[in-house]
Amino acid sequence: MRGYGAALPGTAAAPGCPDTATGGLRGPDGLRALTEVALDALAGGTAARGGPLPAGGPEGVAARVGPVCDPLLPEHGIGARTALYEIVRAVAEGAADPGHPWCAGHLHCPPLAVAAAAELAAAALNPSMDSWDQAPAATVVEERVTAALARLVHPDRPRPDALLTGGGTESNLVALLLARERAGRRGARTVRVLCGANAHHSVHRAAWLLGLPAPVTVACRAGRMVPAELDRALRGAEGPALVVATAGTTDEGLIDPLPELAEITARYGAELHVDAAYGGPLLFSERLAERLRGIGSAVSVTLDLHKLGWQPIAAGVLAVADTGLLEPLSARADYLNAEDDTEAGLPDLLGRSLRTSRRPDALKIAVTLRALGRAGLGALVEHCVDSAEGLAARIDTHPGLRRRPGPVGISTVLFRPVAADALPGARGDACVAAVRRRLLEEGRAVLGRAVAEDADGRPALWLKTTLLHPQAGPADFDALLDLVADTTSADGPDPG
Amino acid sequence: MRGYGAALPGTAAAPGCPDTATGGLRGPDGLRALTEVALDALAGGTAARGGPLPAGGPEGVAARVGPVCDPLLPEHGIGARTALYEIVRAVAEGAADPGHPWCAGHLHCPPLAVAAAAELAAAALNPSMDSWDQAPAATVVEERVTAALARLVHPDRPRPDALLTGGGTESNLVALLLARERAGRRGARTVRVLCGANAHHSVHRAAWLLGLPAPVTVACRAGRMVPAELDRALRGAEGPALVVATAGTTDEGLIDPLPELAEITARYGAELHVDAAYGGPLLFSERLAERLRGIGSAVSVTLDLHKLGWQPIAAGVLAVADTGLLEPLSARADYLNAEDDTEAGLPDLLGRSLRTSRRPDALKIAVTLRALGRAGLGALVEHCVDSAEGLAARIDTHPGLRRRPGPVGISTVLFRPVAADALPGARGDACVAAVRRRLLEEGRAVLGRAVAEDADGRPALWLKTTLLHPQAGPADFDALLDLVADTTSADGPDPG
Repeated sequence: MRGYGAALPGTAAAPGCPDTATGGLRGPDGLRALTEVALDALAGGTAARGGPLPAGGPEGVAARVGPVCDPLLPEHGIGARTALYEIVRAVAEGAADPGHPWCAGHLHCPPLAVAAAAELAAAALNPSMDSWDQAPAATVVEERVTAALARLVHPDRPRPDALLTGGGTESNLVALLLARERAGRRGARTVRVLCGANAHHSVHRAAWLLGLPAPVTVACRAGRMVPAELDRALRGAEGPALVVATAGTTDEGLIDPLPELAEITARYGAELHVDAAYGGPLLFSERLAERLRGIGSAVSVTLDLHKLGWQPIAAGVLAVADTGLLEPLSARADYLNAEDDTEAGLPDLLGRSLRTSRRPDALKIAVTLRALGRAGLGALVEHCVDSAEGLAARIDTHPGLRRRPGPVGISTVLFRPVAADALPGARGDACVAAVRRRLLEEGRAVLGRAVAEDADGRPALWLKTTLLHPQAGPADFDALLDLVADTTSADGPDPG
Repeated sequence: MRGYGAALPGTAAAPGCPDTATGGLRGPDGLRALTEVALDALAGGTAARGGPLPAGGPEGVAARVGPVCDPLLPEHGIGARTALYEIVRAVAEGAADPGHPWCAGHLHCPPLAVAAAAELAAAALNPSMDSWDQAPAATVVEERVTAALARLVHPDRPRPDALLTGGGTESNLVALLLARERAGRRGARTVRVLCGANAHHSVHRAAWLLGLPAPVTVACRAGRMVPAELDRALRGAEGPALVVATAGTTDEGLIDPLPELAEITARYGAELHVDAAYGGPLLFSERLAERLRGIGSAVSVTLDLHKLGWQPIAAGVLAVADTGLLEPLSARADYLNAEDDTEAGLPDLLGRSLRTSRRPDALKIAVTLRALGRAGLGALVEHCVDSAEGLAARIDTHPGLRRRPGPVGISTVLFRPVAADALPGARGDACVAAVRRRLLEEGRAVLGRAVAEDADGRPALWLKTTLLHPQAGPADFDALLDLVADTTSADGPDPG
């Protein structure tokens, strides 16, 4: 077969690099054999771990992983099979594994096997999405993926478009960048960014990166942006403004009141960006899409399919209401998109990203969307949302736990041991933090942490579970709830 | 086995998502079976292609790939196996395949099988590098990788450090960002960036992104920055300045005179960043490392291991002379690195990247470095450099081709058909461009294009071959050279 190093006539192995050392390039046999090694190492490491994460904390993990990396760059290599098996096994054994339901502390999903398998193909073929002649077919796949996602977000617009990004952070960065450039083209010196106190830290980081003034923070109540506060913030100020709303806050999974915010934003001639990194995939569900009503009025929307889309990282998306909005990203580099090449019909990909070399994240997304369809993905989203409701109900009847008052945000449930409530404010919070760390240290569970308003309106620290496991149900958490209630901190203040 | 959805007691399949539809999560059996599907599709698509890229140009490829993506988001999915096989096969058949030696137009490498297999493990485990409790063991692996690469670049510094990035473009962005922040902390309003006319476009793009003045372009001669011109550009100007030199230009593979540039930069109190995205891996070779003499005086250095490091994209690196230089990246987000968690010993990873969710690119790099060792990687680099020299010699004796005068840059060889030389300047260049496009259209070869000085000092357009194939030798290109010499353009001016 042509196209593979080992079988190519006249192709000699490089000196010092016999085929047995590297496994060759990726002739089907070499790659197949090494893939088996990786799968065996994954299975072995996962079995040895036996739970959601390893015990022993950072020092314990370092002590076990260190030896298989020592030295990391030896003078002479130890061979492909040994290096691959040892390191993958150690990383699997030492993983915080979102495939285990009790690994539920972050927007960190267990990827679908079909998406992981597609990643292998992407890695082996290695198309680079910065020019057509590095990725002829992958270019077509990416076009279809971005078109489908753009229509999902902005079904009523004639020319919606979308970009693939490294994640919500990059999507928010590009959104602010585009707003800055629009402002500049209208002769403004800068753009004011306004976001809720509940916004993701990446909004602030993007403004810093882009040399914009720090975003104006709009007050929230019970975790959601208050429309009247946005109105006040926009009133009287001059010049272009971008309002960043959140659909699925990191801490609580809450969705800002998008229709009201959109109306106010439009009234002041400002523009709306919605960070729906978490909540965006609600659009796959007929039943739940309603929760995102108003999102279509946003000029740009951030989505992360490595959250409620079950993709391996990275699978970020920035959807825009009109393809013309992406024009400020256009760039020229003669080796990639010379004018005469573009005129001759070679697609110009450079304006589709801030990156240059770029991996084909579209491949796994395409395979997943085709494999599951909108209804299939919608069912998985609904499963997580329903599981969170079920978990909340179980917490509400658990004598040792108290849930944060109010509705469940998408698939995020906040709660704390009642033992912590018995302690005064700061000590109670310290107890919650210590419980979380103890569960981590002992390798029992990955729970998150979030500061959120308690019933009295005051901030308190909560344990956070973010349910992204498409097969785990509420009953899978019963033993975890008991464990949390029973865990007192060894290194924090005594909750008793 | 605990930790895998299907085998977990009490774990029911999600409604609407039977295991047969999604392949489950990644229980060893589900993932193994789908991996086989992906490998079969890769092999089938590659065999059907039979060459370095598909024939038919963008329209032909779209016509063949489109049907397997139509519709991309059906209401009901078509199942994991079918979607995976069809799309991967189409992408493999329609790939520009760097595993074929005649796919040599870009810094687009054929990845090592061992690195691709490691990517499968990364995708299946899905650690996210923004907090320790999403990636306990992967955190250790990344620490070791960055430490090893930092020492490779800055062996004489007491506290060198490195970050992993999405590629050279992001590395250059972070380098300019760090320079901007250093300038700001010294009370300067901005930092002046100076780079050669040969610099990668990402330097200009980074300055734009960061709100910096456009970089000052320093003149080059024969593709390399002229020290006296840098001296002139720095003389008399005030305030902090960052000089960006290139070690391995995209067009010609040339290395700027680093020792002279470092000396001048230091004399004016400016700082030096070296974009060694292409050339950095020369450091793996005892024989070739000398070509990068002076790189150790750079405050920061860009490396891409998805070029001369045979990694699947992304494997970018930014090495810095001292870990303290990274301080401006530190960020706080309570859900990821709350102060009390950091005090309790949980590693703070947020300052290691501009991204938040972040895939473990360290895993494949770690496996590769351990598998091949410094000598093994050095041998691969030497093989490419030697192959380029051999190719240049063959072009020099080919009656139908003319090589760009001057030395070979790393592994890049520029040449053009003598038929193009017979035409006046612009028409000759158009002929060269048309030959390239015709080879692409016919699916015969991926050659690059570069404008570079001819013997008379005037710019001319050349065909570019960048040799990154660690197993192909000069003889593999003989038939390609004949093909180029014989190809006249169908859509450009007649070269005869």
